[in-house]
Amino acid sequence: MAHHDFTPTIYHTAIGSHEPVLRIASGDTVSTTTIDAGGLDKEGNSVSEGGNPQTGPFYIEGAEEGDSLGVTFDHLMPNRSWGFTSARVAPNVLDPGYVPKFDDNVGRHIWEIDFDKKTTRIAEACEPGPIRRGSGKPVTGPLAKLELPLNPHPGCFGVAPPRRQAISCATSSTHGGNMDYKRFNEGVTVIFPVFVEGALFHVGDGHAVQGDGEIVGTGIEIPFEVTFTVTLHKGKTINWPRAENDTHILTIGNARPLDQCVEHATTEMIRWLTSDFDLDERTAHTLLGQAVEYDIGNIFDPAYTMVCKFPKHILESIGAKRQ
Amino acid sequence: MAHHDFTPTIYHTAIGSHEPVLRIASGDTVSTTTIDAGGLDKEGNSVSEGGNPQTGPFYIEGAEEGDSLGVTFDHLMPNRSWGFTSARVAPNVLDPGYVPKFDDNVGRHIWEIDFDKKTTRIAEACEPGPIRRGSGKPVTGPLAKLELPLNPHPGCFGVAPPRRQAISCATSSTHGGNMDYKRFNEGVTVIFPVFVEGALFHVGDGHAVQGDGEIVGTGIEIPFEVTFTVTLHKGKTINWPRAENDTHILTIGNARPLDQCVEHATTEMIRWLTSDFDLDERTAHTLLGQAVEYDIGNIFDPAYTMVCKFPKHILESIGAKRQ
Amino acid sequence: MAHHDFTPTIYHTAIGSHEPVLRIASGDTVSTTTIDAGGLDKEGNSVSEGGNPQTGPFYIEGAEEGDSLGVTFDHLMPNRSWGFTSARVAPNVLDPGYVPKFDDNVGRHIWEIDFDKKTTRIAEACEPGPIRRGSGKPVTGPLAKLELPLNPHPGCFGVAPPRRQAISCATSSTHGGNMDYKRFNEGVTVIFPVFVEGALFHVGDGHAVQGDGEIVGTGIEIPFEVTFTVTLHKGKTINWPRAENDTHILTIGNARPLDQCVEHATTEMIRWLTSDFDLDERTAHTLLGQAVEYDIGNIFDPAYTMVCKFPKHILESIGAKRQ
Amino acid sequence: MAHHDFTPTIYHTAIGSHEPVLRIASGDTVSTTTIDAGGLDKEGNSVSEGGNPQTGPFYIEGAEEGDSLGVTFDHLMPNRSWGFTSARVAPNVLDPGYVPKFDDNVGRHIWEIDFDKKTTRIAEACEPGPIRRGSGKPVTGPLAKLELPLNPHPGCFGVAPPRRQAISCATSSTHGGNMDYKRFNEGVTVIFPVFVEGALFHVGDGHAVQGDGEIVGTGIEIPFEVTFTVTLHKGKTINWPRAENDTHILTIGNARPLDQCVEHATTEMIRWLTSDFDLDERTAHTLLGQAVEYDIGNIFDPAYTMVCKFPKHILESIGAKRQ
Repeated sequence: MAHHDFTPTIYHTAIGSHEPVLRIASGDTVSTTTIDAGGLDKEGNSVSEGGNPQTGPFYIEGAEEGDSLGVTFDHLMPNRSWGFTSARVAPNVLDPGYVPKFDDNVGRHIWEIDFDKKTTRIAEACEPGPIRRGSGKPVTGPLAKLELPLNPHPGCFGVAPPRRQAISCATSSTHGGNMDYKRFNEGVTVIFPVFVEGALFHVGDGHAVQGDGEIVGTGIEIPFEVTFTVTLHKGKTINWPRAENDTHILTIGNARPLDQCVEHATTEMIRWLTSDFDLDERTAHTLLGQAVEYDIGNIFDPAYTMVCKFPKHILESIGAKRQ
Repeated sequence: MAHHDFTPTIYHTAIGSHEPVLRIASGDTVSTTTIDAGGLDKEGNSVSEGGNPQTGPFYIEGAEEGDSLGVTFDHLMPNRSWGFTSARVAPNVLDPGYVPKFDDNVGRHIWEIDFDKKTTRIAEACEPGPIRRGSGKPVTGPLAKLELPLNPHPGCFGVAPPRRQAISCATSSTHGGNMDYKRFNEGVTVIFPVFVEGALFHVGDGHAVQGDGEIVGTGIEIPFEVTFTVTLHKGKTINWPRAENDTHILTIGNARPLDQCVEHATTEMIRWLTSDFDLDERTAHTLLGQAVEYDIGNIFDPAYTMVCKFPKHILESIGAKRQ
Repeated sequence: MAHHDFTPTIYHTAIGSHEPVLRIASGDTVSTTTIDAGGLDKEGNSVSEGGNPQTGPFYIEGAEEGDSLGVTFDHLMPNRSWGFTSARVAPNVLDPGYVPKFDDNVGRHIWEIDFDKKTTRIAEACEPGPIRRGSGKPVTGPLAKLELPLNPHPGCFGVAPPRRQAISCATSSTHGGNMDYKRFNEGVTVIFPVFVEGALFHVGDGHAVQGDGEIVGTGIEIPFEVTFTVTLHKGKTINWPRAENDTHILTIGNARPLDQCVEHATTEMIRWLTSDFDLDERTAHTLLGQAVEYDIGNIFDPAYTMVCKFPKHILESIGAKRQ
Repeated sequence: MAHHDFTPTIYHTAIGSHEPVLRIASGDTVSTTTIDAGGLDKEGNSVSEGGNPQTGPFYIEGAEEGDSLGVTFDHLMPNRSWGFTSARVAPNVLDPGYVPKFDDNVGRHIWEIDFDKKTTRIAEACEPGPIRRGSGKPVTGPLAKLELPLNPHPGCFGVAPPRRQAISCATSSTHGGNMDYKRFNEGVTVIFPVFVEGALFHVGDGHAVQGDGEIVGTGIEIPFEVTFTVTLHKGKTINWPRAENDTHILTIGNARPLDQCVEHATTEMIRWLTSDFDLDERTAHTLLGQAVEYDIGNIFDPAYTMVCKFPKHILESIGAKRQ
């Protein structure tokens, strides 16, 4: 149950079987930092190429293929006072042939964090080019009044994928990756299938705020302080990432089209309910039929993400105890 | 602003340019009833073939192609003490090749409504065949303890589609139809494009409760008391159904795959924000990017449904007033 | 085995349970005409609204739900010396956000038919607006040299759909419809499920030529002489349209996305091989695995079309006789 | 213009930036061998894990990001007298919920090659388990009479993908990969985008025969003799694989659903026609509209493949010369 403070010096833009940066045991906690999606650190200095550069990988002692790895996010908070967003909804989220009626040369917004109020506002609009605080001009009109509550969450994280693959941090699959799901925030535990020795957990792509789907291609991109605790489940094989928060158990499908994400996530939820909660499959189907919930994750990138959720209070009310 | 009490005697299982059952004016309110998805009325008698039989159509005076029609659900409540559900998650919602591990001969559940507590519980499990209260046997185990809060909403409703089509109540499109969205409940206003003279509003397929997606192919299917008020918006052309409730404005995309629903609903939301809320398109994109929400409607039937939502309190906070 | 000459005076832009224009018996042959997709007849006069107006429906005596109806196209030939095409590949067939680099105001081409050579060439480029021979100007450059062989086929035809639906001629489903498949040409027999009494066969939307997918939204749109012969298969129930030509048996899936069309067409092919050719299902799978072929039909409209094909000579070589 | 004989000793089941096995120059020809999809060599010995193990990568001198690499298959021929197939059409190619009516415990077929007749026949049916010639029993019935002509082609080949990824040989993307397209046979030239220094060409997964789509998950899997010649196109940037054979130019889209493959391949074809054939974009759209063709590649694996084709004789007939 050690606590590790880890300062990264190398970042990866694909999740794979890279050299571990730290070896930890099940139960250990790590406090570290991530840089923003564009590779800028907390000082605004470019320390990596862009594309959701990841801190890690962290090697979990004893993890091997067929296990699963729980990662609890104990603390998630931006460590820089500003982040940035893109300004245009992706064409793949709009009707084919729909052309937005504003200049294609859109630039980006820089948002300022109010750590006391836990909110954020647009500070400046920047021309295209390298992101730099102070390089833009103030916004006017309705956007000048916009104030959104912080919801810090990492957009991209996961474990090394199977078959010696290294998968771009732009996309996602069974190993996690760029899921961009706004409820992977403080307190959640995400559980991954383990495909390689040591599991090799990576984390990055912090968002201060994000709408469903990350449809402009960014949340408010910002570097993070991250503290997480790992729990190794020996011999507990799962097919897709699972998660749990105060209110729900969740399963995650990453694929394209969204219909296929639904299939993966729903099937994984049935597996979970029937294997761990002492429910027969007929019961699981009836429960899902009248009480399942779905949320959208990333719908911007090559693979989309759909989350299947079931309320814990219903499981408790019917005496479906976790075994 | 007349109030009409209407007792239906004919039902349609396709939404189309059928003979109107009542002519009403913009501002009028209608109190009527619907039968359940299987064609059973409040006494449990079969009065129509199954397949989401619709009450209506109601002809709205003065409505013509290019207008839009708002329908506010003032009152939605089951008028029978029991409803039924199917028991098996649809194969198109599960991984290809996944075969549920229970007998295919699944039958259905009958649920009993507690009108005082506004909840429902499973009363009996029935063999396949005609649905009839009292024909089954009690459930045991966890399902016997399940109690869900009522959330009455009609699964299928809409206006006559364009091009003299008549579209099955199993599916949905620009005219509405079988959207199976659980937040189309009491208090919501749904706005449809008008394609034909009189608009021809239909409503049916009441659900006492439904999980997201209607993934077993039913909510708790039950006949309803429905009271609705219509508002005609002359010359206000929209492309897809829109809606509004206490907290959000909503747009609805009906198609397949879900990715295409997302495209339709998101594009319609941009149209709405830029045409009615005095926002330029660049502003609309940035708002959606960091604050859009999506819900799933039907993912059981030929066309799926995705709902794009935007919080009204954010629009108010930035001074984006409806014009 | 009567031969009917039928001159249409009414056309339908949705395929449905319209009043029959002629009653015929199984084995009968009908010679009739169709108008072009825009509603122009062989003189170039507008006699219907546009949208693939259909000749028919033809009522086949004795046909009822659960039967299937074979339609053999004995003769298909344009009956006007010119047809028209659109000029722009549909946005839904191109990458999201790809904007063609030519003026949106594209107009159309008029093509002239050489009935002796059985070819067609571009005669003129027209401004947007009503199509009229002689209203445009000659093309120059490579298109002036383009000469394509005629391949006359009707883009849209089918039988009345189930559930009293009337389905727009812009789309397709189990009843056929706007399949836009270029191998539905002279000599083919297409077999439809029968959903309503009399089957109610419709035909229209003649193409002199068409590329795979009808990706500009038109073939060379032209009115036709059509001669067809019907064969009623009593009690022979099928799920999706089937077809047969000199070389192949074919099954057709109409849906969206194309993946779903593949599923429908392939499943229907397995049903056909195992029910009619005395092959067990294991054999059918192995045959398809190493010798199946697929063609694309319409990929422009709401529903797409995929055709699954199997070579007849392989069936013959292994002694798989039709029963 | 050297000719290299290369004997592989190592194989990769992901395509990535592995250590090159041979450095060659543009214009060079390589004669080498591949093992079968299951990792068996020409003697039937297991020399690699399964999963389309690749020979290579071959480093092409001077290749760098932004170039493209042509690979001409000069010679493709099995180097073992037998190959194997799976026996069951994949569930993702059949209707959801369709369950084949034969024992799940299907085993595989072993096919024998007749090198003189250039055909293949089923030699034996094997139980599940390791593939070994002589371990099964003869087939009876129609399959015993089946004889198919050889069509040797590699199912999986490509260059190292961007962003330091290593992508499983089960799937495909812009770099090529598991495209399973039966017209990538002798004489074809396939052109890849170059993403990394040296391009790093891999090849494997030989098929003696394959139906469209590889819908049972295998062609006739067999080791190969392969001779190929590479041509480096400096500074010629392309977005997706392209190809050329005697009759057509071809572009390849790898994604999911098939609709997205169509979008990638069609857009790439427009880029090709307008950049290399001196055609303006309006002309390209009209040509595609009336003369484009599509073929299906893999529809078994995570990414599907669609091929867009245009006939070379039409380009020649209109004087569209390659620049």
